[in-house]
Amino acid sequence: MPVCTLCHKHDAIYMRRYSGERLCEKCFKDSIEDKVRTTISRYKMFEPNDKIAVAVSGGKDSLSLLHILNDIEKNFPQVLICAVTVDEGIKGYRDEALEFAKRSCQKLGIEHKIVSFKELYKMTLDELADIIRRKEKELSPCSYCGVLRRRALNTAARQVEASKLATAHNLDDETQTILLNIIHGDALRIARVKPVLKGGHPKLIQRVKPFCEVPEKEIALYAYLKNTKFQSIPCPYARTALRNDVRTMLNTMEERHAGAKFAVFRSIERIRPALEASAQKERLQDCKLCGEPTSSKICKLCQMLQKLHII
Amino acid sequence: MPVCTLCHKHDAIYMRRYSGERLCEKCFKDSIEDKVRTTISRYKMFEPNDKIAVAVSGGKDSLSLLHILNDIEKNFPQVLICAVTVDEGIKGYRDEALEFAKRSCQKLGIEHKIVSFKELYKMTLDELADIIRRKEKELSPCSYCGVLRRRALNTAARQVEASKLATAHNLDDETQTILLNIIHGDALRIARVKPVLKGGHPKLIQRVKPFCEVPEKEIALYAYLKNTKFQSIPCPYARTALRNDVRTMLNTMEERHAGAKFAVFRSIERIRPALEASAQKERLQDCKLCGEPTSSKICKLCQMLQKLHII
Repeated sequence: MPVCTLCHKHDAIYMRRYSGERLCEKCFKDSIEDKVRTTISRYKMFEPNDKIAVAVSGGKDSLSLLHILNDIEKNFPQVLICAVTVDEGIKGYRDEALEFAKRSCQKLGIEHKIVSFKELYKMTLDELADIIRRKEKELSPCSYCGVLRRRALNTAARQVEASKLATAHNLDDETQTILLNIIHGDALRIARVKPVLKGGHPKLIQRVKPFCEVPEKEIALYAYLKNTKFQSIPCPYARTALRNDVRTMLNTMEERHAGAKFAVFRSIERIRPALEASAQKERLQDCKLCGEPTSSKICKLCQMLQKLHII
Repeated sequence: MPVCTLCHKHDAIYMRRYSGERLCEKCFKDSIEDKVRTTISRYKMFEPNDKIAVAVSGGKDSLSLLHILNDIEKNFPQVLICAVTVDEGIKGYRDEALEFAKRSCQKLGIEHKIVSFKELYKMTLDELADIIRRKEKELSPCSYCGVLRRRALNTAARQVEASKLATAHNLDDETQTILLNIIHGDALRIARVKPVLKGGHPKLIQRVKPFCEVPEKEIALYAYLKNTKFQSIPCPYARTALRNDVRTMLNTMEERHAGAKFAVFRSIERIRPALEASAQKERLQDCKLCGEPTSSKICKLCQMLQKLHII
């Protein structure tokens, strides 16, 4: 077994092809934590008096993020960390993940706020999916869930009076979304795929993505090595076919040309200023129906619920 | 056999998935010619007094373009069409293609200008490839050939006093180049992948791509139906592995999500104005060594030849 190219002491357990490094367990774990620290500082994600709400689903990415941020912020006593979880109401799936999230928070002694679709929108995703199947063939439950979950996370973060909302989107998520936007003919939206999403409205908590430069595969290995217990079965509402294809394609690309995902990410970093300069500044207003911030009169969420005749 | 969805008369021979049309032979051929007409007029590619040099390699794309442009321009008697061909000097490959190009031009009664690497740069691509193999491991012969061929085409177009240079780049070529630029981390370059490339210097002939909205597969079928004789063996200097991967990926994407290539193309159309506005205007000057237009003191081509100690 070859030796670690960083410490030259222990056996390597991971070959990081895009950098040429072979890493032992300790150096690998350190490298992930260092990477997150670098990302946080490069994009100025946090300030000394922040209360950070970590969006914790109970999967490998969000639980790893919770642990890492909790460790990092130990050196910053004024910073507070808490966790927010959304219970969409998916039978046989979310319950288990919720348990993992709860147990991690208890172990770390972290405040944990759970909000549910049922309490916020009067129905679970399972109930909503039934209506969608009957009334609306165009959009999948995932399209609805994305909008409802984003809103729920913001609501929860507001309820715990957080100043930042950290989500565990990783390098794979981000590059997939970039290519999806291009393939959807929606390239102007790629300006919005970015490590820090400013609020722009008092009700909108600033979102940050400390994992945006870490490949999904490395987070999975990190969670495994840290012995983190997490939900591993996938959501029963399958992801869209197109995202799956883009994922496969990017993985093939990365396998053949190590570093391809980083290159895509950096590419977009370089053109984002031009896209943002040309984009019309969205003036946010209060939705006429629910009062939440929106760029049009009725917010996307209320429009969706209207379409299903729920409101 | 289902009937053509356009004329409702003849048997369909082609299912165009991205539009849902099933087309008979005549309607298919008409549709390609119409598409080229639309592209020419959408991007204002030609003017009434143009002399158009068509870059003809002898392959299916360039010969089809030559035939279509020749037909279209019959209705514009002031417009002149001619062909320019570059003989790179590739043994057992270019000779056959040259014959196809020559024969087509003779048949159509079109002026045909052939320039060779040997005459312009004192050596054939085969000779150059030998030097590259010995001295320069980083770049492939294709990288050199691309630069040399572009220059040669411009020189040939100038020699025949053309006002436009039409190349047969198709929808596949263009979307591949777009994604390649993103994967190379070179996204700002995608602003330069466009249907009309303005000269910006008296020595630089304006380049236009009338096939930029036609999928490669449809040009192949068109050439076959028109009974065009063309070079079909691929160049012995293989294309880069990355472009081949991107091609495969885009084809898979198109198969699963008909219209994906068009979506990528349109996406870039939408962000190009922003990218162009932010890009610094390149001031072209004369290369200190060869006198050709360049954005730096020494042009790319002379830099390459210097690297190989040829000049």
